[in-house]
Amino acid sequence: MLKDNTVFVGNKPVMNYVLAVVTQFNNGAREVSIKARGKAISRAVDTAEIALNRFLEGVNKKQITTSTEVIDTDSGKTNVSSIEIVLAATG
Amino acid sequence: MLKDNTVFVGNKPVMNYVLAVVTQFNNGAREVSIKARGKAISRAVDTAEIALNRFLEGVNKKQITTSTEVIDTDSGKTNVSSIEIVLAATG
Repeated sequence: MLKDNTVFVGNKPVMNYVLAVVTQFNNGAREVSIKARGKAISRAVDTAEIALNRFLEGVNKKQITTSTEVIDTDSGKTNVSSIEIVLAATG
Repeated sequence: MLKDNTVFVGNKPVMNYVLAVVTQFNNGAREVSIKARGKAISRAVDTAEIALNRFLEGVNKKQITTSTEVIDTDSGKTNVSSIEIVLAATG
């Protein structure tokens, strides 16, 4: 998968990320990866669900993975959970 | 899987849910399902990651699924995303 097929979900309104995902598929992407960390994880799930239920035809959830990343902060290292949801065009 | 092997994650501190998951495995459960909706989804991922990385030996993520649930509220029906993370003992 190419790097530019990844959408990083942060603190903006969820429809911004939905639009980014839909645009990638409309531009011919076969797979789009939605990634988020920490509190944005729930918004990443919203992004995938809204994109699939309302906008995308012939696209499925291919894989969902969660992991723990170590982040450097001013007060030392801390762990943060992350999620990756891969959507893939079928047929 | 029995009903009592499900941990519903809400707004309490994450360690409450981690303890609930660990306790189920210590009481002999082979699988524990972690469920959450809406903003609690990120806490459900934290619960699974902390339980696996810090407390549980010989337990893996078996399956992660996301879905959309329709909820009745005072102002009508609304959609909310949900997640289920199934942890399973190996061997």
